[in-house]
Amino acid sequence: MELFEAIRTTRAMRRLDPDRPVATEDLWTILEAAAKAPSGGNRQVARWLVVTDAGKRAEIGRLYGEAWGSVRHVYDGDSPPSPLLRSADHLGAHMGEAPVILIPCSRGGDPASIYPGCQNLFLAARALGLGTALTTVHRLKEQEVKAVLDIPEDVSTWAMIPLGYPLGRWGEAPRRPVEETTYWDHYGERRARR
Amino acid sequence: MELFEAIRTTRAMRRLDPDRPVATEDLWTILEAAAKAPSGGNRQVARWLVVTDAGKRAEIGRLYGEAWGSVRHVYDGDSPPSPLLRSADHLGAHMGEAPVILIPCSRGGDPASIYPGCQNLFLAARALGLGTALTTVHRLKEQEVKAVLDIPEDVSTWAMIPLGYPLGRWGEAPRRPVEETTYWDHYGERRARR
Repeated sequence: MELFEAIRTTRAMRRLDPDRPVATEDLWTILEAAAKAPSGGNRQVARWLVVTDAGKRAEIGRLYGEAWGSVRHVYDGDSPPSPLLRSADHLGAHMGEAPVILIPCSRGGDPASIYPGCQNLFLAARALGLGTALTTVHRLKEQEVKAVLDIPEDVSTWAMIPLGYPLGRWGEAPRRPVEETTYWDHYGERRARR
Repeated sequence: MELFEAIRTTRAMRRLDPDRPVATEDLWTILEAAAKAPSGGNRQVARWLVVTDAGKRAEIGRLYGEAWGSVRHVYDGDSPPSPLLRSADHLGAHMGEAPVILIPCSRGGDPASIYPGCQNLFLAARALGLGTALTTVHRLKEQEVKAVLDIPEDVSTWAMIPLGYPLGRWGEAPRRPVEETTYWDHYGERRARR
């Protein structure tokens, strides 16, 4: 897949097919993509925990659902609920049914050494037809999630990423025009795009 | 450019041609790529500050050099200096000469809503032949950097990214095998790749 097409059409896919497994070779491919991203001093602090065991997925899925329930009100502004909220509700109820759940971890380290690799992984998954979503809501239940997966106390978990074949369509996510979000030489100074 | 080739060959390029300018249209292209990345609740908190003014680049470049000087010892383990250290020293001395310096900012927000966009930007720049590097060392002098660019007190700066045509070669950065950095169902449990 061409790079810019991948970038344009990679979006959160929160509705995943629980019955269609992900090939192990595809998992290695997307993990290799993640590993190519930069890290401070090239120390490569990221460790990727791949959760495929159905019992463990169900346990951390339940914890995720509880965490989502406790922050949902922050996003619930519109009536009827926005497509994003409905999609997030679906993930809250079905996280544990994603065929694979990925959790980037590190001992110490900096988020600047973790999230660039997540984006590489999302793009690589997209090229293979696999959907992903980035959420950090699980951190409200981080201690319980870590207990399920035997993650040591001094290791941080940076995201919970469901992975699987999407039930929805690929497509470009809505974004503000970059002319509004780009400043030139002074904070707040915009320029028109000619 | 094909996605996986872009992912494989995007690496920190710290030696940039100070005399070859970057086309404004290419800047918009890479900023659009950054904007496609996910953000919490799709709130799109990232604001990109594009510094092209030579005087401001020189000022923040000097601050970056001071910040690098104060942490350099952390990376200085090998004798003779590693290629990475020499490259980082070059950037410490020449940040201000990069044709463009990019600074992702946000008011509040979470690094999970910033660094995925940085990786999209790095990949898009690579496809256009433009080099980038991700550094957060400037944060040791963040208040001074913000003063140069009129960045409000409640806005965070997440990185300093030099951008320009590289003097070095593209190529694959060294990384550990993913079999070592991937765990399965339990933290620390590795599997062989068959």
